[in-house]
Amino acid sequence: MEIEIGKNRKAYWTFGLDEISLIPSEETIDIEDIDVSFRLGDFRFPIPVLASAMDGAVDVRICGVLGNLGGLAVLNLEGVQTRYEKPEEAIEQIITAPGERVLEVLKDVYKEPIKEELIEKRIREIKKEGVIAAASSTPLNAERFLPICLSAGLDIFVLQSTLTTVRHRSSKWHLDIRSFCKKSPIPIVIGNCVTYEGAMELMEAGASAVLVGVGPGAACTTRQVLGIGVPQVTAIADSAAARDDYYQRTGRYVPVIADGGMRRGGDIAKAIACGADAVMIGSPIASAEEAPGKGYHWGMASFHPLLPRGTRIYVGILGTLKEILLGEAKRDDGTMNLIGALKLSMSSCGAQNIKEMQNVRIAYAPAIPTEGKALQR
Amino acid sequence: MEIEIGKNRKAYWTFGLDEISLIPSEETIDIEDIDVSFRLGDFRFPIPVLASAMDGAVDVRICGVLGNLGGLAVLNLEGVQTRYEKPEEAIEQIITAPGERVLEVLKDVYKEPIKEELIEKRIREIKKEGVIAAASSTPLNAERFLPICLSAGLDIFVLQSTLTTVRHRSSKWHLDIRSFCKKSPIPIVIGNCVTYEGAMELMEAGASAVLVGVGPGAACTTRQVLGIGVPQVTAIADSAAARDDYYQRTGRYVPVIADGGMRRGGDIAKAIACGADAVMIGSPIASAEEAPGKGYHWGMASFHPLLPRGTRIYVGILGTLKEILLGEAKRDDGTMNLIGALKLSMSSCGAQNIKEMQNVRIAYAPAIPTEGKALQR
Amino acid sequence: MEIEIGKNRKAYWTFGLDEISLIPSEETIDIEDIDVSFRLGDFRFPIPVLASAMDGAVDVRICGVLGNLGGLAVLNLEGVQTRYEKPEEAIEQIITAPGERVLEVLKDVYKEPIKEELIEKRIREIKKEGVIAAASSTPLNAERFLPICLSAGLDIFVLQSTLTTVRHRSSKWHLDIRSFCKKSPIPIVIGNCVTYEGAMELMEAGASAVLVGVGPGAACTTRQVLGIGVPQVTAIADSAAARDDYYQRTGRYVPVIADGGMRRGGDIAKAIACGADAVMIGSPIASAEEAPGKGYHWGMASFHPLLPRGTRIYVGILGTLKEILLGEAKRDDGTMNLIGALKLSMSSCGAQNIKEMQNVRIAYAPAIPTEGKALQR
Amino acid sequence: MEIEIGKNRKAYWTFGLDEISLIPSEETIDIEDIDVSFRLGDFRFPIPVLASAMDGAVDVRICGVLGNLGGLAVLNLEGVQTRYEKPEEAIEQIITAPGERVLEVLKDVYKEPIKEELIEKRIREIKKEGVIAAASSTPLNAERFLPICLSAGLDIFVLQSTLTTVRHRSSKWHLDIRSFCKKSPIPIVIGNCVTYEGAMELMEAGASAVLVGVGPGAACTTRQVLGIGVPQVTAIADSAAARDDYYQRTGRYVPVIADGGMRRGGDIAKAIACGADAVMIGSPIASAEEAPGKGYHWGMASFHPLLPRGTRIYVGILGTLKEILLGEAKRDDGTMNLIGALKLSMSSCGAQNIKEMQNVRIAYAPAIPTEGKALQR
Repeated sequence: MEIEIGKNRKAYWTFGLDEISLIPSEETIDIEDIDVSFRLGDFRFPIPVLASAMDGAVDVRICGVLGNLGGLAVLNLEGVQTRYEKPEEAIEQIITAPGERVLEVLKDVYKEPIKEELIEKRIREIKKEGVIAAASSTPLNAERFLPICLSAGLDIFVLQSTLTTVRHRSSKWHLDIRSFCKKSPIPIVIGNCVTYEGAMELMEAGASAVLVGVGPGAACTTRQVLGIGVPQVTAIADSAAARDDYYQRTGRYVPVIADGGMRRGGDIAKAIACGADAVMIGSPIASAEEAPGKGYHWGMASFHPLLPRGTRIYVGILGTLKEILLGEAKRDDGTMNLIGALKLSMSSCGAQNIKEMQNVRIAYAPAIPTEGKALQR
Repeated sequence: MEIEIGKNRKAYWTFGLDEISLIPSEETIDIEDIDVSFRLGDFRFPIPVLASAMDGAVDVRICGVLGNLGGLAVLNLEGVQTRYEKPEEAIEQIITAPGERVLEVLKDVYKEPIKEELIEKRIREIKKEGVIAAASSTPLNAERFLPICLSAGLDIFVLQSTLTTVRHRSSKWHLDIRSFCKKSPIPIVIGNCVTYEGAMELMEAGASAVLVGVGPGAACTTRQVLGIGVPQVTAIADSAAARDDYYQRTGRYVPVIADGGMRRGGDIAKAIACGADAVMIGSPIASAEEAPGKGYHWGMASFHPLLPRGTRIYVGILGTLKEILLGEAKRDDGTMNLIGALKLSMSSCGAQNIKEMQNVRIAYAPAIPTEGKALQR
Repeated sequence: MEIEIGKNRKAYWTFGLDEISLIPSEETIDIEDIDVSFRLGDFRFPIPVLASAMDGAVDVRICGVLGNLGGLAVLNLEGVQTRYEKPEEAIEQIITAPGERVLEVLKDVYKEPIKEELIEKRIREIKKEGVIAAASSTPLNAERFLPICLSAGLDIFVLQSTLTTVRHRSSKWHLDIRSFCKKSPIPIVIGNCVTYEGAMELMEAGASAVLVGVGPGAACTTRQVLGIGVPQVTAIADSAAARDDYYQRTGRYVPVIADGGMRRGGDIAKAIACGADAVMIGSPIASAEEAPGKGYHWGMASFHPLLPRGTRIYVGILGTLKEILLGEAKRDDGTMNLIGALKLSMSSCGAQNIKEMQNVRIAYAPAIPTEGKALQR
Repeated sequence: MEIEIGKNRKAYWTFGLDEISLIPSEETIDIEDIDVSFRLGDFRFPIPVLASAMDGAVDVRICGVLGNLGGLAVLNLEGVQTRYEKPEEAIEQIITAPGERVLEVLKDVYKEPIKEELIEKRIREIKKEGVIAAASSTPLNAERFLPICLSAGLDIFVLQSTLTTVRHRSSKWHLDIRSFCKKSPIPIVIGNCVTYEGAMELMEAGASAVLVGVGPGAACTTRQVLGIGVPQVTAIADSAAARDDYYQRTGRYVPVIADGGMRRGGDIAKAIACGADAVMIGSPIASAEEAPGKGYHWGMASFHPLLPRGTRIYVGILGTLKEILLGEAKRDDGTMNLIGALKLSMSSCGAQNIKEMQNVRIAYAPAIPTEGKALQR
């Protein structure tokens, strides 16, 4: 929907998750009959949750725990896990740094070079946990890291940067995503993107799934620093439209994974209702007892040497990862038992599976956050 | 009204009570000529106020006091009143629990089983107060509780859950609402619902009144936890449209009771202007001297074992229930003399009775909450 | 402009002063060539400012000071000035009451009966100041007070209540405004109203000017308590449209006076740009050194026995009334030199007089309040 | 886009920088291939940044530093630099004044008359720094100052007031901008303006560039005090439309410089995306170690004797001007490395130069500021 913001200048009206709400259905479904499983390539995941490739959220242990719960954690191949033999020491430095020195400490910790042998080691460790192994790299290192990953037994490769596009206007080197995907024997998940065209081009280039979201995450200041971003409701709906059109045309179904900006069960339900097949979350994972960050969380652009645009935040420790995802909830604010909440939401909306949930009725309800909150203190 | 939130994806634009205001009329009415009475089945209530079936708000005493004031309190058949011989002890535990332990204590208190003899006892106690007796049950227990209620002399049965629908897709047992209503010799009030279709199906199934509202109450975090809900203005207007269409078609008038999100006289006036015949309120009742919660209030989903989505809030004690509903107001913020405010609002809007109030002019005024507030501290 | 808020239910989209901004012109005007004078009946006022008939703002002294500055203060005939020989003592009680007892003290102070001899005395005192004398009464007392006022030499009678309408549906007594105006030898200002039709009917009944505004003032909680009100931009524009249509039809020009919700020079400029001929202000007058309230201000519905809907607010003492209206400003937030600001605003908008100012371009700018404020602490 | 705010009254819907966001492109560009240079008359500036003619931000030293970094600082010819031989003493008085006395001290400091010999001296000092020299005057002094400036070697003259128009309705003297431009051998930058017509008339009168913005700056309270202003998105887009139409008609390209309301890299990127060729910033310059204000900043209307409408704000000292504009950023909130952020934003939006950046896709995203912020504390 276009809106005129000045003479000869239009803007595209976009929407955020806080502005919408899901409309209950006239036909409800028994919660035990609800299926939230999600497919990526030939893999099937009982719960549609990926853990963000962020150092406060994911290490080998989390990969094991989340994998056993039915989801998928993505290890960052460019974070502390592959720079340090003992990453817990680097993490300790970050989380104990006083507020005003965090940025400095982050820059310092991430100066240590990435070690190829550690990439291999970490992936083998994940596989030892008996779960599907996924790891992420930026386009710059992707061609170098992929063979190492394959030899270590990686199952899914995630090619991720703030914004990843097939086309790049430059005289210099640029990763050829199309041929990269073609060569890879394992599924390549690519992101992030936020538009119909952007998602479509990644699908056409061979992505096995796309990550959607620029700017919405809690540990990210991209919108302030760069002025760019698209709120998640519109970004997901547009990418989902690309997925559906691409599927119509080719018969290949490329899942859309909403990435960033979701902390509560309601956020996940809304993202799926907007068209997502699964979600990638950071803060909720980082708030698990088992998470490496011990209640702290920071973005992977936080330590960019010239233009840091993230921050270390304290998310606290809410419970075990199992409690956070599957309950029993010890809190009443929606931050625990995320999957239970998703299922109850689907039950209320009359959606038996993810596909049906993508078509439920949505309310544009900008008033929701204020109404009724007056007494909640 | 639809709004495009992304490619191929539309949302229904919904509105909350805080976003609207009522437009004064050119013809005012003497306040003493105003009639706010409300009919439910064969019962006539001088004031259009029901008290929510919540344990901090309603016990036998409140049923008596509110009944004598002209309204109707609904006793929760699944709360402390039917689990404990001496419910005041259970309530004492809840209201004295330190903030971080409230959820735990709530879960614990509500583990105690419901006793059928207490159901019978409480209803007889209410009838002894000489008032119309109403009590609520979830669909799960409705068929078991109704005969007990009838034998104890109950006048109105309330079938209530967060979202109650006629249709349920499940292989398991599901209450057949149509036959339940048919069998019942007393009126069945059913809720909650928030859509035209949802309200219509409940009316067609035999409801004597419908409760409207999912997510708007002060002690409720449904919107955060599940992502579902419809702001009250639109939920009420749509349900009222169903009531009017159903009445046109069948000649049976099924009142719409707005439930949740109303704390002040202005909120009640707005709810009726949107189409409600009466309101169900919790926080204002809980803030009466006579209320069992002694200034505390909590939702009936607060203690859900897997997915608690309410919270204990402190509403304070403002005065007697009579003062809160009929004045004299000792506060100037609209939380006392709710019926006096409703009448003065109707007087200003030129509405002599509830039916006329349902047709007054409404302003969409999102700016109202900020303007003029600058100096009010 | 209508907006659909639910099935079969529309609302009228209304706007507040904080949501708009004035668009500078391509032709500016020398500030010394600007005329802000305003006519009411046969009286001409050099500045378009009336002081609200509120006890913290207006007493005999303020009538003199404001009259000599070119404006018009309205004495409340139902306030402390006509209840007490020594009103300063009653005021002292109000302003020294501790916060939690204010309402009680207000109710108590205003229990004292109004004395007809004090009405006469106060009006004579105002006339002794050598200024145009104006005083206000509610419809209930108007017929009784007018003869007293006339014999004491009153120049302008203000008939004011929260909402004053010509038509009243009641079996009881109601003031016949049409014959009241007809009988009066002096101009009758009537208010408040907020709609096109409401203003039109008051004009047709014989009002010499109408007061516009229900709910927008700082010391008023009408919107919270009753749920009624129309934001000032729309209320003024609609009333101004009635004035213009009435003038077209009859040749009689009935000025529209915006009443309530204006504290800064920019607010006054905006009210006039929306169509007002003058403004009635309370808080800025109450913040003058000469004001009776010594920095405190309260509404005249604050002490309503059954339904108080105002509050005592502390506005502080900013300077002399001359400094507040004409400068020199000692503050940079727009609360001083209101007329200087109005003139500079008119200069920027290319408006030489009030009539031209009523036609300048307006921006709907809901974003204004946030932008640029980030650093203003 | 027009919106009806009342009967017969329309407003122009305007937008602020906080309400929009830039949509990433499907084709990205290597950051090193991006050109942000800007032309004004025959001068070419490597970075599109002008420093506001404000005394806390610009002195001779800043002119040198910014000029050497590729931008242009504008010295205020009516500020402390031309009133005092030793301006640092006057500045010291301002920044050490206690909060409640700031306005008084400002008025006092700026009572000292402007000295023509200091105008000449300062301009010669700037030229000695080896950079392009620019200085500003209000219309009142322009004809008197220009010859002095020329003889001292000034390169660019800035004719600036809150609102500068070609047409002025007055019997008194008014600067003839057309002939002033004609006579000047050096480029005349004129401002401020906010409308299509206003910008067009300045261009037709001979402006070499126009400054756009009334009311958006951090040290400015014009909107509160006068009620006038247009949010920057619409003001820039409309002025840019005038520039394009004027260029079509005449072949002369008059750059649009967005002035005010921009503190972060993202703000600058958005302003250019709305149509600006360059930006004029105050707060970011004032927060440089080299700035005269030592972390303080105040507007040039702050000391207006009758109607002060600015304020002294503390912006803090963030780093050297080079760090603020070109990095390395020591903060993650977007207030450092503004040009690095602009380039990365252009890279993401697929814009190789300013001209391409003026055409990137814009999102209307009023939800952006809230979403994702919940955890950022």
